[in-house]
Amino acid sequence: MPTSEFALIDRFFAAQRRQRLDVALGIGDDCALLIPPAGQQLVATMDTLVADVHFFAHVDPASLGHKALAVNLSDLAAMGATPAWIMLALTLPDADEDWLERFCQGLFALADRYDVQLIGGDTTHGPATLITLQAQGFTPPGLALRRSGAQPDDEIYVTGTPGDAGLALAAAFGRAVVAPEDRGYLQQRLERPEPRIAQGLALRGIASAAIDISDGLAQDLGHILQRSGVGAQLEVDRLPLSPALVASLDRDAALRTALASGDDYELCFTVPPDRAALLAAAAAAWNCRCTGIGRITQEPGLQLRRADGSAFLLERLGYDHFGRSSEVC
Amino acid sequence: MPTSEFALIDRFFAAQRRQRLDVALGIGDDCALLIPPAGQQLVATMDTLVADVHFFAHVDPASLGHKALAVNLSDLAAMGATPAWIMLALTLPDADEDWLERFCQGLFALADRYDVQLIGGDTTHGPATLITLQAQGFTPPGLALRRSGAQPDDEIYVTGTPGDAGLALAAAFGRAVVAPEDRGYLQQRLERPEPRIAQGLALRGIASAAIDISDGLAQDLGHILQRSGVGAQLEVDRLPLSPALVASLDRDAALRTALASGDDYELCFTVPPDRAALLAAAAAAWNCRCTGIGRITQEPGLQLRRADGSAFLLERLGYDHFGRSSEVC
Repeated sequence: MPTSEFALIDRFFAAQRRQRLDVALGIGDDCALLIPPAGQQLVATMDTLVADVHFFAHVDPASLGHKALAVNLSDLAAMGATPAWIMLALTLPDADEDWLERFCQGLFALADRYDVQLIGGDTTHGPATLITLQAQGFTPPGLALRRSGAQPDDEIYVTGTPGDAGLALAAAFGRAVVAPEDRGYLQQRLERPEPRIAQGLALRGIASAAIDISDGLAQDLGHILQRSGVGAQLEVDRLPLSPALVASLDRDAALRTALASGDDYELCFTVPPDRAALLAAAAAAWNCRCTGIGRITQEPGLQLRRADGSAFLLERLGYDHFGRSSEVC
Repeated sequence: MPTSEFALIDRFFAAQRRQRLDVALGIGDDCALLIPPAGQQLVATMDTLVADVHFFAHVDPASLGHKALAVNLSDLAAMGATPAWIMLALTLPDADEDWLERFCQGLFALADRYDVQLIGGDTTHGPATLITLQAQGFTPPGLALRRSGAQPDDEIYVTGTPGDAGLALAAAFGRAVVAPEDRGYLQQRLERPEPRIAQGLALRGIASAAIDISDGLAQDLGHILQRSGVGAQLEVDRLPLSPALVASLDRDAALRTALASGDDYELCFTVPPDRAALLAAAAAAWNCRCTGIGRITQEPGLQLRRADGSAFLLERLGYDHFGRSSEVC
């Protein structure tokens, strides 16, 4: 069994069939050589998944390969970028070829769908499985979506149905019970999130600010508010809840999960009132929901309001790696 | 004590003073936005350091910050690239502010020297300290140094004095005894390697192939030979040995250490005979040695020869992460 680092790299990671024309030199030298498109800005992000922190060690490696890429593509989506290149730093407790083969299947299946090429990385031995992926893409100058552009009276939107991944996690930890017919859907939402690349691209020139929801809708919206120097009023009864979430939890627990559980990888974004029609036209072509959930306000802070005008209370806003607080159910 | 992920990121990593004009948006959004220089190729690399695998967990965090960047800059140097941007994925068992402050001191001191800006990354909780750094730089098209260009009769060179880091490691593990007056020098060579950026830039248009020595001179030269489809004859008695290495080990052990221990981060490169004068002129300005140690041959394989013409035997070529073989002393 070839277990040397070089044999591993050659056999698994150099096997991607998709080859981009802007990769002058890929895996196999000290560095990759890339040809950035003329006149475009480069968009770069990096995310780490740690076993027993961000994923269950026994998860299907193909799902893990998918998710490691999806969480990075989700960051590119939140900036309105076209994805292009990835680098992978993989730390493993042992060199398990079956695991590597499945991991690469999941990684490359998603990469090929978005014309993304693995251009290099590092494989190391360590005490646990850790996956750090760096992803890069492009936007025309000035068109990247940022967190800092929200203005008072902008409408706040969210894609998809946040809270599903949080419910799946709660069920896995025995803190929620879900019906057998919902389990497949929820597992898919947790383990195989779909990066909202098409949505991010469509939002160029429409959204005034955007972020992807990885640490909880309320917390991530909070980053938009902070960077933009504004506040927000969220109408919690307008939150788009999946049938699985509605069926599994009582109303308030479902709302808390949609607001404050992590791992959703949906987009939260703001749109000025005069571009609402542009958004409606764009969103008609999307394969996911797009729901207005509130409004940006001049006064700072995030207010959560029920349809009857009363305040909705949320103890914790979302996930934090060192504080380790996360509101689930 | 602010221990949340966001407070950590804001306080330590956003504190770098050096700001490059080609960074349109740095730390603080979903992605960084970068402006690649027109007409240049992008050069990208990524390396991971794992506690108790690549460094002692008790090492000075400032040295670790230096080294995490140095090993990546060394890869850029081996391609002849000008460094520009880095991203950092840091996994920690706990949020120790003193550690983070020292780590950033070491990281930013080296980054500032090479006009390198930290543009983003990820901070996560995990079972051990792991540092993955991704670094990017630029080269004019066609001028990057690759592993694949060595030709028969090219002379083989090495910068500095390989084997010093290997000796320092052997001493730390009690497998070698070094004189007290050599300890500072050897610790510096192991913990604070100096990336050969100036040398890599000077070798554009001179070297036919290059690599940095991270896994041992013999093994890394082997990658040049394999990629170039050639062999090499190395004159082991021409190997540049530091006074500390000569003083600490018998002659053959010193040669084995120079050939097959890792962590040197020197450059090994090949130069066609008709460019020898160009190299001599360039190397006269370097702050490190540049030594011819052998010749590229048509016949494949790496031959190690003593001055008297007899073969020099080397059991293991270098370091491998999963095989875990490394020739030290």
